[in-house]
Amino acid sequence: MPAYKAPLRDFHFVLNELIKVQEVLPQLPGYEEATEDIFNSYLEAAAQFCENELAPLNRTADEEGCHFEATTHSVTTPAGFREAYKQYCELGFPGLDCNPEYGGQGMPKALAFPVMEMQCSANVAWSMYPGLSHGAYSAIHVHGTDEQKATYLPKLVSGEWTGTMCLTEPHCGTDLGLLKTRAEPNGDGSYAITGTKIFISAGEHDLSDNIIHLVLARLPDAPKDVKGISLFIVPKFMQDGSRNGVFCGSLEHKMGIKANATAVLNFEGARGFLIGEPNKGLACMFTMMNAARLGCGMQGLGLGEASYQGALAYARERLQMRAANGPAQPDKPADPIIVHPDVRRMLLTQKAYTEAGRALTALLALQLDIEEKHPDAEARKDAADLVALLTPVAKAFMTDNGYLATNLGMQVFGGHGYIREWGMEQLVRDCRISQIYEGTNGIQALDLIGRKVLMDQGQKLRKFSAQIFAFCQANEGNENLKEFVAPLTQLLKDAGELTMGLAMNAMKNRDDVGAAATDFLRLIGHVTYAWLWARMAAVAYEKLGQGEDAFYQAKITTARFYFAKLLPEVHTLMATIKTGAKPLMALPEEQFAF
Amino acid sequence: MPAYKAPLRDFHFVLNELIKVQEVLPQLPGYEEATEDIFNSYLEAAAQFCENELAPLNRTADEEGCHFEATTHSVTTPAGFREAYKQYCELGFPGLDCNPEYGGQGMPKALAFPVMEMQCSANVAWSMYPGLSHGAYSAIHVHGTDEQKATYLPKLVSGEWTGTMCLTEPHCGTDLGLLKTRAEPNGDGSYAITGTKIFISAGEHDLSDNIIHLVLARLPDAPKDVKGISLFIVPKFMQDGSRNGVFCGSLEHKMGIKANATAVLNFEGARGFLIGEPNKGLACMFTMMNAARLGCGMQGLGLGEASYQGALAYARERLQMRAANGPAQPDKPADPIIVHPDVRRMLLTQKAYTEAGRALTALLALQLDIEEKHPDAEARKDAADLVALLTPVAKAFMTDNGYLATNLGMQVFGGHGYIREWGMEQLVRDCRISQIYEGTNGIQALDLIGRKVLMDQGQKLRKFSAQIFAFCQANEGNENLKEFVAPLTQLLKDAGELTMGLAMNAMKNRDDVGAAATDFLRLIGHVTYAWLWARMAAVAYEKLGQGEDAFYQAKITTARFYFAKLLPEVHTLMATIKTGAKPLMALPEEQFAF
Repeated sequence: MPAYKAPLRDFHFVLNELIKVQEVLPQLPGYEEATEDIFNSYLEAAAQFCENELAPLNRTADEEGCHFEATTHSVTTPAGFREAYKQYCELGFPGLDCNPEYGGQGMPKALAFPVMEMQCSANVAWSMYPGLSHGAYSAIHVHGTDEQKATYLPKLVSGEWTGTMCLTEPHCGTDLGLLKTRAEPNGDGSYAITGTKIFISAGEHDLSDNIIHLVLARLPDAPKDVKGISLFIVPKFMQDGSRNGVFCGSLEHKMGIKANATAVLNFEGARGFLIGEPNKGLACMFTMMNAARLGCGMQGLGLGEASYQGALAYARERLQMRAANGPAQPDKPADPIIVHPDVRRMLLTQKAYTEAGRALTALLALQLDIEEKHPDAEARKDAADLVALLTPVAKAFMTDNGYLATNLGMQVFGGHGYIREWGMEQLVRDCRISQIYEGTNGIQALDLIGRKVLMDQGQKLRKFSAQIFAFCQANEGNENLKEFVAPLTQLLKDAGELTMGLAMNAMKNRDDVGAAATDFLRLIGHVTYAWLWARMAAVAYEKLGQGEDAFYQAKITTARFYFAKLLPEVHTLMATIKTGAKPLMALPEEQFAF
Repeated sequence: MPAYKAPLRDFHFVLNELIKVQEVLPQLPGYEEATEDIFNSYLEAAAQFCENELAPLNRTADEEGCHFEATTHSVTTPAGFREAYKQYCELGFPGLDCNPEYGGQGMPKALAFPVMEMQCSANVAWSMYPGLSHGAYSAIHVHGTDEQKATYLPKLVSGEWTGTMCLTEPHCGTDLGLLKTRAEPNGDGSYAITGTKIFISAGEHDLSDNIIHLVLARLPDAPKDVKGISLFIVPKFMQDGSRNGVFCGSLEHKMGIKANATAVLNFEGARGFLIGEPNKGLACMFTMMNAARLGCGMQGLGLGEASYQGALAYARERLQMRAANGPAQPDKPADPIIVHPDVRRMLLTQKAYTEAGRALTALLALQLDIEEKHPDAEARKDAADLVALLTPVAKAFMTDNGYLATNLGMQVFGGHGYIREWGMEQLVRDCRISQIYEGTNGIQALDLIGRKVLMDQGQKLRKFSAQIFAFCQANEGNENLKEFVAPLTQLLKDAGELTMGLAMNAMKNRDDVGAAATDFLRLIGHVTYAWLWARMAAVAYEKLGQGEDAFYQAKITTARFYFAKLLPEVHTLMATIKTGAKPLMALPEEQFAF
């Protein structure tokens, strides 16, 4: 495993040349000072921290894991984690995109997302400790009372305290309507929280002085199902320093992200404080959840990048067999394996998915900034719609591609890829959870097709398509881009017709929606990436001849690879979607096994 | 993780109803007594052993792993492994398909392969100890002198001794031409073997009294490259009981198959005995290698089956959300997740790939038996050609599908799938190596397109296609089968034309072969599975109305699922193959990173 190098040149490309965040940020009140120079200084500081502090801990921390001490309910994180976290706080990163009113740096998401990608590449298990805290910050920032904000936000922003989100219980994950944790009024405005939560990432650890749990629970006589769930703030330590009744019962033994403490938390009448309105807890939680879903996508992206860097270095060094059209390095005993087309297929798949994912991330980050800050209501609405539409795509498509990419990186290493010391298989194991948590990718697919597309009669999707179609029209006469724009235009037309057909079928048979969901999400993912790759090629053509031709030529070549070798997946997706639900529903349950 | 249940009903289906081994075996000298009754008694004994002895050890053995004691160069296998191996030997399974002359049971591969599948499902890490021994048996049986056979075979057949295959060295895996291990004549007919071999599965352990290593090494003045490699027998202990100079230097720390000892072996002038002709070692090793490749395929199959069983049981029990068209079990708090189309998609994908893989395995096993025993030379040649053509397909397609299946099984479990105690993620980790060892799946793809298809001007592939075409023609008027036969006929035509085009391009640019290889292998895999599913549906239709309709109806429904949801992958494969090598080769090496 080679040292991780942050892809600063590519961050510059997506932020400043493709998405052009600097054309938008000055219009957003509060972000006037987030100039390119400011961005660069933060990105460089983050790159140094990730390369020099986080990445070197990644491999050893996987072997060491977290240690649970039952007598004290305490958890020790792997060697180096505390020191790295301390330094991270000193650098001010916990509050990078937080409100300056509470001590934050007030930077946009357009900066925070690349910083998050770097952390995911360098040490995804570590990155989850501050990642979860940020979710807790957001929920309290949006839904908390002034007093709650004053109490919790400064400490979360400084990093002195960390946070969690406590949703899952042993019998319910996807179906939160089934949750049983109870909240009984104490009579003093607080509540006694009782129940067991599982799979709580960063649920107990030794990095911070206090842990602020955000917990879903039911008030007495709450309505059934998701309509009766409320959100509570449950600190590990109370204001007066006393220990609250929430205890880590055990840590899960997992496939990966072993250095992140995944806790079973027992709430034993713990004191909690209602946040937001009673019975509206799920909506509050979704403030954290949507951010967490994009965070998951970033994990797929960051791990894909790390795996690509490892595989590329290995493919340039490992000598094995000769190039098919004659030796490339006749003076060596064999050629480096990067000469072989099938090895290049694997590397380019990693590269094309990773760079498109980075572009999508930059796009979404800026839309989040617009949604939050733009003075114009319509601009905010448009941004919110695009974010809503593409959040499930970013979560599922980026993590599925990340898993594919980490597996390909491991495959490039051959047998060595299977050996833990090389670090490639850890990336696979660490990535695998991103397809599962924060709503499985199957749930993302249902969210996209059901809630985001069909529920508003395709309005958000049409707006997105119009944006892509406008790009196609604007570049219709561009000979350079023809190879990208022509298939993109056709795909857009085909996907539009297919979506119409789906909407018709959905009225007759709801199962057709679920049957199409996963394939439909990948289809929309490819529409998005095809558009982004065409745009990246367009930018690259504009920049040719200005002194960095190799970089821009690589973008054009990678775009061609994407259109030739990855985009054709849509042929299969459209074919399978058209076969509907019947092939899935026809087998009676008892005939699945004999 | 539910208890493993051997799929005995499906073994009966593929062996006796689909492939109809009993119509062929009586014609093969030596297999006259391998009747259906005999098959059943062995299959039931193996099922009991795998269900009751091997499967219960699988999870604990993964956690425990193998332990290496450096001072004694010795390895301890996980608790229970020794006892299970002893029982396996007492049952006579090590010699199941071995020559009775050396104590074997003399059973055909058509029986041995299902037994191997069960072992892979129950405990793949354990199964590799006898698996490697069998490879050593085969190599000595085919290439050894009478004296060598007399010395080694009885002990390998009884299981008192085990075997290994020692190919890989730190600097070469795929490219064995680079290997450096030396064999110097001792003057007494034996050789002193010196060098380091890595990734030696079952290379050192405590299951048997002796370990017989089959080692590739170079004689003095041997020609360069693969033309100068010879094969040697290197026992751990000599006939007189003295310790030979081969020592385990360490065990690898791996992603999975942790209960199999993957050893670094240091040969320190170890006494070895040439087997086969000097400098022809690679050909000898391929006797083991081809069997090992099919064994790998079986690992993908067996692990897919195990994962399917686990996922199916969970999907029937886990209550979460309601069916889209109304509650299925209104009396319960939620419906079992098997009601959801996307969960069914995952289960049916596992099921369809697993059952087709089982059919392919039975087909190939019988062809191996014919190749070895049939009195008619042409029949032997036809069988050998089909085995040669489909061995890389079985290895790569079955392991890729096995990895897909184990990942889907884990996904069905949601967050619980990521937790080690549930056993689902172990199947993923254990399966991952099958795509890498015994020649990576990329190497299998090159073997198929290069050596097996292009090198004989498509002769083997045409013979195979003719067989499929004959099936299509014979069933042209069958209304029941139309939905399968029509697309299969079209696919056969399309794949044939595409192969012709590939052959033309290959003459102009060798890189086009490598560029197409992986996609081409999946395409041929789908041609094979589409044919097998059509045949399985044909058998099922014939059997309807005879009292087991549910079983046969499930076959027809699963065939429909395969044609609707999995086979359409060929649209993508044909599209990407047609784009050739250019999109892969265009990027200069230095432009892969900036």
